[in-house]
Amino acid sequence: MISHGAEKWLGEVQKVLNDGEIELVDYQGTEEQMVGIARISHGKIFPHTDPPAAQKLINYFMENHHTSPFEFCDLTWRWRLPIFVARQVVRHRTASINEKSARYAELDANLYIPEPDRVLGQDTKNRQGSSGALPEDVQNAFVLELIALEERSKSLYHAHLERGIAKELARVSLPVGVYTDWVWKMDLHNLFHFLGLRLDPHAQYEVRVYAEAMYRVLKDAYPMCCWAFEEYKLFARTFSRSEVSMLRFVTPDLHNPGYGEDHPTAKRIISKLALPE
Amino acid sequence: MISHGAEKWLGEVQKVLNDGEIELVDYQGTEEQMVGIARISHGKIFPHTDPPAAQKLINYFMENHHTSPFEFCDLTWRWRLPIFVARQVVRHRTASINEKSARYAELDANLYIPEPDRVLGQDTKNRQGSSGALPEDVQNAFVLELIALEERSKSLYHAHLERGIAKELARVSLPVGVYTDWVWKMDLHNLFHFLGLRLDPHAQYEVRVYAEAMYRVLKDAYPMCCWAFEEYKLFARTFSRSEVSMLRFVTPDLHNPGYGEDHPTAKRIISKLALPE
Amino acid sequence: MISHGAEKWLGEVQKVLNDGEIELVDYQGTEEQMVGIARISHGKIFPHTDPPAAQKLINYFMENHHTSPFEFCDLTWRWRLPIFVARQVVRHRTASINEKSARYAELDANLYIPEPDRVLGQDTKNRQGSSGALPEDVQNAFVLELIALEERSKSLYHAHLERGIAKELARVSLPVGVYTDWVWKMDLHNLFHFLGLRLDPHAQYEVRVYAEAMYRVLKDAYPMCCWAFEEYKLFARTFSRSEVSMLRFVTPDLHNPGYGEDHPTAKRIISKLALPE
Amino acid sequence: MISHGAEKWLGEVQKVLNDGEIELVDYQGTEEQMVGIARISHGKIFPHTDPPAAQKLINYFMENHHTSPFEFCDLTWRWRLPIFVARQVVRHRTASINEKSARYAELDANLYIPEPDRVLGQDTKNRQGSSGALPEDVQNAFVLELIALEERSKSLYHAHLERGIAKELARVSLPVGVYTDWVWKMDLHNLFHFLGLRLDPHAQYEVRVYAEAMYRVLKDAYPMCCWAFEEYKLFARTFSRSEVSMLRFVTPDLHNPGYGEDHPTAKRIISKLALPE
Repeated sequence: MISHGAEKWLGEVQKVLNDGEIELVDYQGTEEQMVGIARISHGKIFPHTDPPAAQKLINYFMENHHTSPFEFCDLTWRWRLPIFVARQVVRHRTASINEKSARYAELDANLYIPEPDRVLGQDTKNRQGSSGALPEDVQNAFVLELIALEERSKSLYHAHLERGIAKELARVSLPVGVYTDWVWKMDLHNLFHFLGLRLDPHAQYEVRVYAEAMYRVLKDAYPMCCWAFEEYKLFARTFSRSEVSMLRFVTPDLHNPGYGEDHPTAKRIISKLALPE
Repeated sequence: MISHGAEKWLGEVQKVLNDGEIELVDYQGTEEQMVGIARISHGKIFPHTDPPAAQKLINYFMENHHTSPFEFCDLTWRWRLPIFVARQVVRHRTASINEKSARYAELDANLYIPEPDRVLGQDTKNRQGSSGALPEDVQNAFVLELIALEERSKSLYHAHLERGIAKELARVSLPVGVYTDWVWKMDLHNLFHFLGLRLDPHAQYEVRVYAEAMYRVLKDAYPMCCWAFEEYKLFARTFSRSEVSMLRFVTPDLHNPGYGEDHPTAKRIISKLALPE
Repeated sequence: MISHGAEKWLGEVQKVLNDGEIELVDYQGTEEQMVGIARISHGKIFPHTDPPAAQKLINYFMENHHTSPFEFCDLTWRWRLPIFVARQVVRHRTASINEKSARYAELDANLYIPEPDRVLGQDTKNRQGSSGALPEDVQNAFVLELIALEERSKSLYHAHLERGIAKELARVSLPVGVYTDWVWKMDLHNLFHFLGLRLDPHAQYEVRVYAEAMYRVLKDAYPMCCWAFEEYKLFARTFSRSEVSMLRFVTPDLHNPGYGEDHPTAKRIISKLALPE
Repeated sequence: MISHGAEKWLGEVQKVLNDGEIELVDYQGTEEQMVGIARISHGKIFPHTDPPAAQKLINYFMENHHTSPFEFCDLTWRWRLPIFVARQVVRHRTASINEKSARYAELDANLYIPEPDRVLGQDTKNRQGSSGALPEDVQNAFVLELIALEERSKSLYHAHLERGIAKELARVSLPVGVYTDWVWKMDLHNLFHFLGLRLDPHAQYEVRVYAEAMYRVLKDAYPMCCWAFEEYKLFARTFSRSEVSMLRFVTPDLHNPGYGEDHPTAKRIISKLALPE
């Protein structure tokens, strides 16, 4: 099945970071087909051609964790990315990955070098993030040192290869900021889960840019799914049991005319707050 | 590692439905160890023995989707359950399962027969559920028909086996309400996900009773995790982007003295509502 | 990417058993692309257009368990299949499945009824299989009883639905031989693993026919992969350590002229037998 | 359940490479219990206490790919390992992993430095391996350069941290040979698969030493399973369809008295060679 929104991105290389790339290589599944598959209860697959009805169904699946329809869309991407980013991404175990082997192939050993204004300080509240500006000279010095490191580590690596040292061993000296290449496939359900984590402002900037590039493609290829994803996942908020208890007390206005049980959104909030434990 | 709360349940058979059973067979991991594993950033595993600090960490993991610590606890259960229940449970793909083979072993072919007052009518709103009482005579008739069906299908099955028909074929006539036996293992992260779905009032009653029996064990074996699960998952509520927009307008009281930014729960709600999109 | 061999099967319904169906719904990936992905070590994806070289690479991946290239092809199928077959197939956890819900939709409750000559006796050696002919009257009686059972169980099911009993409960009486419908997706690596088990003569006949129908499609869609699958998996044989020890002693002829180290197949056998433990 | 063979390894740290460690942290399951679980067809779990019968069953499961019994044993390990080794190991997606976060914690940045005699040259036949000795001065020079690199990269890293650069960014300059720490859990079925690949002489030496250390533990903890693993997997050999065809012709001696159909091993070989395609 052809998704016109996906087709136009095939082979379009998006540049990210100083030497990164991401490109849609292939895909399976369209929103029409997904809705048809979800309606297998009728015994046949009838692709759904009525957009408002399709959007309503997709919303229902997304809100109610009916994840299987989304699993029938798959996307395959080529990435060029720094090793430390690859190390974060590979933790998502539902991907299929074929990566360039540094045992078999010589790496070009290009290094990730941030833009000076992306060189941030340690976040003092969120102990695993970065935040706040650093003095410009600190930023510039960091960049210059990485540029020097790239040259040094390339020449060390090549010297070792020239002396006959096995590639699998020579690469030990390369920085984790060096770029690698891989092909990476994930179904749309797991991709939304991935994006929910990696589009988050707390995700490391260097992985977030890849997530943003993928999301640009998804918005063309699966626009109804993206709408539902934003509504029910990305921009939804979860409140804990204690927070729900307090929300019950501070929202009497929901019952006022104007909101009230007649307003569908108010009605849904009221009913969620009233759910028994 | 020994969890005293888990040990006392080993071999304790809980009866569910008319002929179902569920029993903890083995387990791995304790809450102390889980916290120690989560703190591998310190390079060694130091089991955490300060309960309030451990609870705080566990809460943090649960709320922020740090799922890996929970994956280090595993529980193995023996179930005796109707086939139609097994068909729902098996869809959770992260379990290890060893099931009695109806190709190899003769089944006892006992049938699930509900209590008369559990014979419910089709839900008219939620089209995949049951609700509302039926007339008592309809309930009783259903039960009596199942009792007759059990006898009929057992005698058909045995007649076929006696004539030499292969077991794998003879079972074709058995109802999907017949009991099977299996051993089933799942880690605690995936088990909480399973329970979040199967403890829900919309889950079918016949699977919910197994979920409830397992949760009884978990509350003894992993009490701090269960507290966090109830607070951040089971009794938490997620509001969509539109609902969050409305909640922002109807909660001015959160800023009043008494609640206000000084009250930690109010403060957390305010900060979640204020999160940028 | 378009695989012409796959395209011609899209929407072609293959009939199996008395009321079963299987149909290719969608797919992702071609052999040319797979080889290109496997060669990402060159930093770009160059689809491989030289068939003999592509076959050689595919053979190498299959023989040496380089499974990731095969994971980049995916196939989505619609099946209509008896529940007891679905119960075997669902144990392959790497599939995505969307199945007709008997909680939500009324089943047609058609029953699997074998051809009389497929009614086999219990295998006495392989205790979980079937084998050997049964007397014709036993075979015919079994078929007639299933025909009667189908009518009886349909009328029981409908009677219950008419009295208002919830669908999720009414289905308890339906035989495990009743047909269900689902959509099922699996990548090519896992599909070959599935087929290796389910094309085997020891697999139950009623699941084997679905495997054979899928394999018919694969031979058109991925012919080079199928060749490698037959050579290195399906018709390969594994010998245990003790068997290998004996094979070493009984194959002196391999070293004779005619076979000998000059014959590539003989050479490979010799080298496998000589592998150190 | 207690495995005495496993208990004695709990907390025993095995040293590997220049600064690596591996230690059994916890486990679930014994061989007796595994056999009991496999026999759930009898409706209860009866741990099998007759060793020869248990060994026979375990052999049967291993040879015939009945993998589920092995999934009921789990082992949790603490590793200290170089990042490039972690990158290979993480590709086994069936593990649960909790790794030290270089976003959150400062790394000690110790570097993997091989013994001089482990500094090998590029394999010219197997293009992804290492082989053959290098001149001693090349080996020594490599080691000295890594020692210098370790010092240089530590001081660069610390300088960046001191200037306030976020940890997640400062680590970009660290070599992929730097050590990390993680806790890693895998079930016994998947662990045998892992070991089959990583104990192989073609696996990179630096990952093989971890596999060997784990296998030392397994031999005490699960000795019957290890016997079956060696017999049916590790030291078994698979012959392709063409190789099997040739083996049929060169093994007439198998039918001689002495071997012959009376010798059980010969009989098994004959029957495997005779299997129809």
